[in-house]
Amino acid sequence: MGKGVRIQELPGLGTRYDVDLHSSSGERVSIVVSRDGKRHLYVFTAVGDDPAAVLELTEEQARKVGAVLAGTFFSD
Amino acid sequence: MGKGVRIQELPGLGTRYDVDLHSSSGERVSIVVSRDGKRHLYVFTAVGDDPAAVLELTEEQARKVGAVLAGTFFSD
Repeated sequence: MGKGVRIQELPGLGTRYDVDLHSSSGERVSIVVSRDGKRHLYVFTAVGDDPAAVLELTEEQARKVGAVLAGTFFSD
Repeated sequence: MGKGVRIQELPGLGTRYDVDLHSSSGERVSIVVSRDGKRHLYVFTAVGDDPAAVLELTEEQARKVGAVLAGTFFSD
């Protein structure tokens, strides 16, 4: 499962995960999981350093989005 | 878990999940899970109909991003 994900410790901050989407147009996703549980989601849609979108998610919000993406989301 | 996620069947296409981020600035995430497993991720960072970023993810890519977000990602 670890293939295609680069993990980098950010001392004092948390952990950064870069998910390679194998896109020649530079599409990729970076997620920074902070020590307090917050997630910052960076979505890149083009080659370069500037994300097209940045979202700050609480742990609960991130869990919901994650479950939908992973296909494990079930409504009550 | 279902709270804050609106689910809509898209006949013949798949299922759309809107995750409300309770943001006054319009931040939200929509995910369309297609019947073939593909996911389209729409990230909105402002009020309005235009997403700031759209990504097409394979099922495997979506599972990786989802696991990182949900906090269940472990590298090999």
